[in-house]
Parts: sequence; structure tokens; C-alpha cells
Amino acid sequence: MKQSNMLLPTLREIPSDAEIKSHQLLVRAGFIRQVASGLYSFLPMGKRVLRKVEDIVREEMDAAGANEMIMPALQPSELWKETGRWDTFGPELMRIHDRHEREFALGATHEEVITSIVRDEINSYKKLPLTVYQIQSKFRDEKRPRFGLLRGREFLMKDAYSFHENFESLDETYDRLYTAYSNIFRRCGLNFRAVIADSGAMGGKDTHEFMVLSEIGEDTIAYSDTSEFAANIEMAPVADSYTKQTGEEKALEKVSTPNQKTMQEVADYLGHDLSEGLKALMFKVDDRFVLVVTRGDHEVNDIKLKNLYNASIVELASEEETLNIMKAGFGSLGPINVPNDVEVIADYAVKYVLNASCGANEDGHHYINVNPNRDFQVKEYADLRFIQEGDQSPDGQGTIKFAKGIEVGHIFKLGTFYSEKMNASYLDQNGRANPMIMGCYGIGVSRTVAAVVEQFHDENGMTWPTNVAPFHVHVLALNVKKDEQRELAEKIYETLKNAGVEVLYDDRQERAGVKFADSDLIGIPLRITVGKRADEGYVECKFRRTGEQQDLHESDILNVVTKFLDEK
Amino acid sequence: MKQSNMLLPTLREIPSDAEIKSHQLLVRAGFIRQVASGLYSFLPMGKRVLRKVEDIVREEMDAAGANEMIMPALQPSELWKETGRWDTFGPELMRIHDRHEREFALGATHEEVITSIVRDEINSYKKLPLTVYQIQSKFRDEKRPRFGLLRGREFLMKDAYSFHENFESLDETYDRLYTAYSNIFRRCGLNFRAVIADSGAMGGKDTHEFMVLSEIGEDTIAYSDTSEFAANIEMAPVADSYTKQTGEEKALEKVSTPNQKTMQEVADYLGHDLSEGLKALMFKVDDRFVLVVTRGDHEVNDIKLKNLYNASIVELASEEETLNIMKAGFGSLGPINVPNDVEVIADYAVKYVLNASCGANEDGHHYINVNPNRDFQVKEYADLRFIQEGDQSPDGQGTIKFAKGIEVGHIFKLGTFYSEKMNASYLDQNGRANPMIMGCYGIGVSRTVAAVVEQFHDENGMTWPTNVAPFHVHVLALNVKKDEQRELAEKIYETLKNAGVEVLYDDRQERAGVKFADSDLIGIPLRITVGKRADEGYVECKFRRTGEQQDLHESDILNVVTKFLDEK
Repeated sequence: MKQSNMLLPTLREIPSDAEIKSHQLLVRAGFIRQVASGLYSFLPMGKRVLRKVEDIVREEMDAAGANEMIMPALQPSELWKETGRWDTFGPELMRIHDRHEREFALGATHEEVITSIVRDEINSYKKLPLTVYQIQSKFRDEKRPRFGLLRGREFLMKDAYSFHENFESLDETYDRLYTAYSNIFRRCGLNFRAVIADSGAMGGKDTHEFMVLSEIGEDTIAYSDTSEFAANIEMAPVADSYTKQTGEEKALEKVSTPNQKTMQEVADYLGHDLSEGLKALMFKVDDRFVLVVTRGDHEVNDIKLKNLYNASIVELASEEETLNIMKAGFGSLGPINVPNDVEVIADYAVKYVLNASCGANEDGHHYINVNPNRDFQVKEYADLRFIQEGDQSPDGQGTIKFAKGIEVGHIFKLGTFYSEKMNASYLDQNGRANPMIMGCYGIGVSRTVAAVVEQFHDENGMTWPTNVAPFHVHVLALNVKKDEQRELAEKIYETLKNAGVEVLYDDRQERAGVKFADSDLIGIPLRITVGKRADEGYVECKFRRTGEQQDLHESDILNVVTKFLDEK
Repeated sequence: MKQSNMLLPTLREIPSDAEIKSHQLLVRAGFIRQVASGLYSFLPMGKRVLRKVEDIVREEMDAAGANEMIMPALQPSELWKETGRWDTFGPELMRIHDRHEREFALGATHEEVITSIVRDEINSYKKLPLTVYQIQSKFRDEKRPRFGLLRGREFLMKDAYSFHENFESLDETYDRLYTAYSNIFRRCGLNFRAVIADSGAMGGKDTHEFMVLSEIGEDTIAYSDTSEFAANIEMAPVADSYTKQTGEEKALEKVSTPNQKTMQEVADYLGHDLSEGLKALMFKVDDRFVLVVTRGDHEVNDIKLKNLYNASIVELASEEETLNIMKAGFGSLGPINVPNDVEVIADYAVKYVLNASCGANEDGHHYINVNPNRDFQVKEYADLRFIQEGDQSPDGQGTIKFAKGIEVGHIFKLGTFYSEKMNASYLDQNGRANPMIMGCYGIGVSRTVAAVVEQFHDENGMTWPTNVAPFHVHVLALNVKKDEQRELAEKIYETLKNAGVEVLYDDRQERAGVKFADSDLIGIPLRITVGKRADEGYVECKFRRTGEQQDLHESDILNVVTKFLDEK
């Protein structure tokens, strides 16, 4: 492609509304333009990258046995009313009336439409399992669109849906798509993690988020520095892999701790580490009171508490309730001498402490030299705390680190949430009707483009991975008015193009400085500059990412380029 | 692809709402499903065809030097208000409010958005010409959606826009896209014509419609049976290529024609052909009265009359006005003795009549043996009539025929309609600002799929041209319970697939009759049936379109398939 024929408007200034690098660079390099808040046009360069990501997604989805289809963006409200989401989805779902005053939703997602199609067309176990997908613009009326492509109101998404007889079949498809997703993001060059996630409002069970590691991410991930393990910090299990401190159990002793409220204050006052104190918090778990004990340096994860009791509601007891039951306030609770109607449970780590301190259930007093089993009993030890940096990875391999992540993909086991509400059932081998088991699987295609830029840029611009780069090679004619430069550049451009290499040729009448700056900004992986040595047939070849450069004779260019592309 | 894993629901019954073949067959063969009136899902087979058309469009647009981009479907109303189309577009333009009560249009077309982008980014003649395109779902709230994909409310379209310094540059791009469009429809296998069309409401000048010839088309085309010439009947010129009848001019004579009103009645009464009578109609052309004379077998084309006078309004004069001025009613008008304030003009054909008849401007009377020049004068002879079947083609090659057509593409020279209203200007070489000259170019991608089916079907189903067929080869295992059939079918399937052939493999446990019927319905070009002779390694190979069939040994299949695909 000749640059003079392309809509490729670069900017020197950082757009004032662009807070993050991907937004700034994609606008500055002429890849995208805002049409209205949260609505972007992909100009030709941006569209090329978008298509490359789209093609990778399509190839991997096809290879995973999914069928591509396409459903309309306009969806009749009747379908959304069947699942109740017409009311529950909220203002993010854009709604529109047609000329006959019928209500429609603008597709934010397509569970309702695909479930209505499948219930009409599939009625036998013989036609299951089935996985379909589409790549389509989705609409969500974000309250505060921001971060360019990361949180827009119209964005390109790949959404997939699977239908099954049973959970084993769902598991198989889920695993296959897990692999497909891993392949997709790997091929995009991304440093990402498949993260165990909370199923949230979708009503599903198992779910993974695919997170691209990035400082600007809105979610925190706990991941192993050695293995593949990664989870949202809310969801990360902590293994019972502590070692007992060795030493002699000293005699239990009650001490006065006047005005020492927080764990840190008590630890400082008593002169021990935070990890040598025991923290006790009173929770209301549905209709019972539970005293939860952790080490002083750990935090209770109420999702784990909720899951342990399979409870609907988990909340901290009020100070009033605490005083009423325990006869002591928040700062002085402990597991020794707890009333019978209060259950005491403790995090695994508590089991291993030696000569710890804890509140004495008496304001202004603590016990020291507390030892589990000898001094107090618990109903159950369990994993009840948030994971921390430095913890052992739950899979036993490596140490936990934290990172921020950008969610680019999400896979869910939906179960029968939609099929039951919409009456999507199949007849099994015995002729009995059962609701289909469903899964759903999303990738933010345009969001992935932004995530790539977040990971691949430097102070001069973007540094595209070859697989998703808008072009492979950028040929610059430094001075097109000089015949020998223009002619050699054109010859190289034609040669590479005819060899199937994707080449952008800067044939513009611009100063060399402008051309170099634009080229760095755009970030095509390999640059070939035709300049002063054109008359000898020599050009400069520079790799955008590494900055590595060499002078090459024109006759060697195709070899170098081909080798580079083969290695990509 | 294995058919058992595919969402491919075929129907025996014709859907009750489907009036035309493409609608019936695409639904019956499981290519599309209606979600709501005018809104269709493309199931996997339909999506495959859609993608093939899309890919052809993309290749030809790229080859024509256009840049692909993608603009949002949601468009702020402010842009549409700049051109006035927010008010004039009518209820077909779907409108929506966001959560902040801002108004948006759902993209029916993108002139406003692209013009706003280009005016912001391009300001110099150096960056012109520029052609961009996108392939995107469009929304138009048709009053009566019908005919399946032919008139839907959400449909896939390729829309392109070009920007130029001058009309010569526009002409060049227009011609290049004319060629690209011809290539696209030819590659889709279509019998089509590029038709000179009326520019209608878009305010353009030159315009061509690409029409697929089909009985169910809503427009009538006049085309040459020999050359490429084709035009909407309203727009088709008629050449001045008549030959003068030879013979003696007889003496003019006035005759009584009591109660003979129509041209046919007069001709019958006087005993001559319709073509030997002269018809005269009184028109109001803006503020003057014009008597238009044609042969009795011809019809006045008021668009041509309007163009001749460059008039705003052309309408038939009322009977009262006619009586008042001509002293005679509608049935008795003629070009002899016309008042001075009435202009007489005539169609070219009138010049060549000999001894014709015409109204005497006296009720109940006609002249016979009328001869132009001798008996009456006209201000101007011009092309003033509708073209007819049997006329000579205006390009002098062949004879005119009429056909119905489905519009699948449309190219326009827009001029400065949008650029002036939206202030999209560029600086020319002298530093002067001028409005950009624009063109726009559309293809109905989903509509093209329907048009292909209208041309390619028989009584058993669809007969896809190879270039846009969902698969190239359909392998049928007639009885999958028989090991030798299943194994041979799978071997053939794998062999072809590995050779890059697109194969659908019917591995379902269905009766042979069902498989044959489905295969005919789906219409994949080449069918390979593995049946009773599987143990000898023999299969039946059948071409869907021609019905030609032959028994083949498995070792010859790849050769036959490859040869067929090479010839496509």
C-alpha cells in the first residue's frame, strides 16, 4: 500500500482526552478516530489490525469445532422478557422502537437470541453438543465511556454459545475453548493469564477470565511466578501448606492492653510480629453468628466464608451485636471462652501458630502464649483468607505475585439458567425432555487491539507483534524527489509485495524527520529506509522492537524479510 | 465439516411467509432463520456463503485501491442535522436515545460520518483522491419488510466513499469501481447488467445500478440483446435511427371521427396502424404550455421532457386548460394550426412518418395524409419517448429487450452535495479552498446472496456457483452403520480436506432418501455418494447443476475434484 493513498493521519500532540497509552497512540498514529463518546471509527491502519485479530479468532474457533454464524443486532424485547433481563440488564442495554412501536434491544450479548434459535431447531440429544459463534459489533451504553477502545459503547466482540446433554460434555467444550483462547492470545503476542474468576451476574459456575497483564488493568490477579496458576484475588484458594513453628508452648497468660485497638497496635504493644497475633471477627452468616479467626497479617475473604456455609448473606456483626453476645468490643475478640451459641472457625494458618496473642473477650485485655488445641477449639479449619503476594501458589508450584489485568476474554459454564427460562429442552436417549446445559464464551476483539498496544509500545510509538501488525514491512523513501531513492524504494516495494509480504511504502513528499517519527509511531516491525546510499543499492534495515539495525544490499532484502517472517 | 456437528436444520415444507424462491430455499435449507420481521440470523451455512461474497467484495475493492475501514453504527444526530437528512430521511432511519438523552441514528448509510472524518483529517489536494470502504450491518426500518434477505431491516452492506479535487478524478475512480463491481458480480456467477439509472434523492449526477436479471425484480431494465447496454426504462435514451417511409405524400384531408377518443379507436376507425397516427399531448412545463407530439405507438417520457427544458415541474395540462387554449379536448389535439403561444415539439420518430393521421384541434375531427414539414412545423425534434422492446439499442448494437432486475449494487457521482453542507473542503495548488468532489458506492452483500439463489436453483433446491458455494464437495455416507461405507466416506473426507478442498461430510444416521433430498436442497456443486459399492472402492460422483454423474474409484476422486475446482 502506498502511504500517499491512505487515510493515515498522524498527530504530534497527545489527545487531551486520552489517559492511557493505547488510546493516545492509536489516535496519534491514525488508527482510530472518535465519532462520539465511546464510539470509534477504525481508520484503515486500525482496521487492518482489527482484521488480523479477527482472523486469528476465527481460525482458532473453527479449529475448536465451533460453527460461525451471525445474528441480528436488533433483538425483539419479547426474548429478553423471557429471561427477565429486559428489566434486570439496566441502562447499559440500549433500547429502540421501530416505526410500529415495537421494542427492540441493540445486542449487548446474544444468549436470548441463540437460545431461541436452538430451542426451535434442536430437539434431540443426537444433535448435541453444538457450539456456535459470531464476530459482531456489540452495543453497551456505558455510563462513563473511557480509555479509548477499552471501554466503548460499540465494540467488536466474538461471542460463542454451546449446548449440551450433560456437564461432562460442557466440560469438554469448555476445555477445548480454554485452549483455543490461550492459542488466540498467544498468537496475538500477549502476556496474559487465564484467571479463575467469579461468575458474577451471569449465574454460571466455573468461569475463567483471560487477563492481559497491564498496570492500567482494573482487576487484580494473583498468579504464580512459576506455573500457569492465576486467579482473581477474590477467587484464589490458599493451600493448607504452612509449617508449624517449632518451640515450647509457654503458659497462657492474660495481659492488659489498654487502648490498643488494631492488630498492629496490639502487636507493637506486645512486641511481636503481626503474624503472631490472632485476629477474630464476628460475622452474621444468614441467621447464625460465627467467630472467624485468622492470623493478624491475613484478611478474611468473605466470599470463601459464604461458600463454606453455602450462605445467602454474609456480613460483619455490628459492634452492638458483638458487645451483646461476646461482652467485648471489636478490638478485644478472641477464640478463648466463646459462648456456646457462637461457632468458632479458623483459617488453616491459625493451626500452625505458636505462643500467639489474641483478644481476651474483655475490653483492654489480651491473652499471650495462646496455642490452638490446648487453649481453644475450633469447629473447622478452612481456607478463609485472601491470598497475598509471597504466598505459595495453590498448585504447589512457585510463589504468588499480584498484577493488574485487562480482561480480553471470558468463558462461562452457564448451566441451565437460560434454557430453563426459555424452555430450550432436548429429548434424551430415553425420550425424556431435559433443559440443555449451556456455556458461553466471549472475546473483546477491539479491546484486544488496545491490550496489545498497552503491552507493545515504547516512548516513540507502538511496537506491533508481527502476527497482528498492520503491515510487516515499512519501506521509506527518504527523499522521493531523488530519482535513485524513489526508484529503488519502489523496486523494493514491488518485490516484497509480489512475494506476498505486506508492505506499507512511504512515498510521501515529507521531510525525513517526519517519516521516521511517523514510522516509529505506527510501529511496523521491520523498516527499510532508502536514503543516501541508494545509488550503491544499499538500504538501512531496522527492527522496530529491538532497535537493531544493519545496512543491507537490495539483493539481500527479500531473504532477510522472509527469514524474519518465518521466525515470527 | 461433519454435518452431525453443524446447526443445519432443513425443512420439507415451504415457510408460509416466503413468497419468493430465495426466501423459501434459504430457510428450507437451514441457511437463515427469521428473528423478527425483516431481521434474519445467518446460520452456519448461510454465513459461509455470506463470507464468500464478502471476501470477493473485499478483494476487488482492495484491488481497486480502496482502503477498508469501519465506522460505528451509532451516529450522533448532529451530523445528520448538518446535511438536513435527520429530517428528510424519514422513518426508515432508526433513531435511538442514549442514557444521557442524546439522539443517535442507527447507520442506514455513512455519508455524514465519513465526510466529518475526512473534513477533519484532509485539507490538501496532496492527499486526494481517497477512496475508503467498509463492510457492515446497516439498518433501515422498512415499512413492509418482505422477500427474506431482499428487503430486510438489518442487512450486510459494502459502502464506499471517494473524495476528489475535480470531476476528472471522480470519473477515474468511478470507472475503476464500475470495473470492480462488474468483477464482483461476475465472480459471484451472476447474470447482471450495469444499468444507467436515475440519481433519485441522493442528488447525484451519473449513476449506475447493478441489476441481477430476475423475474421477481422490482425494477424494469431495457437492455441490448447483443451489447452491454442497459438502462432503467425511465433513463434509456432512444436513438434517432428511424428510416423514412418511402412513398408519395398525399393531399391533406380533414375527416370526421365521431366519438373516437383513443389512438387505437382512431386508428381502427381510419383503418391504419397505431404507428401511423400522431399523438399530441399538452404539458405544462414550469410556466409554459407545450404540445408534445409522438407516434401513436409511443409513450411520452416526462423525465426526458423535463430534462429537455431543464424544468422543475412537468405535468399534463388539465382538460379545461386544453379546451381553453386549443379549443379542442384531449382526443382531438394535433400539431396543425396551433396557437402561437404554444410550443410544439416532437419525438424524433415523428419526423419520419408518411401520410399519418392526427387530431384536427376540433372535437370529432382528424386530419389524414399528414406529413411533417409540409403540414406542420415543430420547434424541436428530440428524444421524448420511453424505449420499447424491439427498438434498436441506443449504442447501435442489437435490439432492446426488457427484463426485471434485483438491484445489488449502486454507484453514484455525488458531487459536492455533502461536502458543501458539511464544509469539507481542501486547499488546491494555489492555496484556494474548494469543496471536495465526492462519489459513493454501495453493494448489498446479503442481498447478493439472495440474488444468487434466485438465479441458481431448480425444483429440488439451490445450485450454488462454485465461487460462493458454502462448500465445494458434499460427501454422503449413505449408511453410516455399515463399516465399509463409513470408513471409505471418512477417508475421502479427510483426503479432500487435507488437500484444501471445502468438504461437508454427511455422517448423520439418516435414511438415504433424507440425505439425497437435503443434499439437493443445500446445493453444494459436487456430491460424492458412498454407498453399496464402497467395498470395491467405488463411489458415485454427481454434479449438482447439470445432474451429470459417474462412478469413480476412490483413487480418482482427488483428481476429478481438483480439475473441477480449477475450472470454476
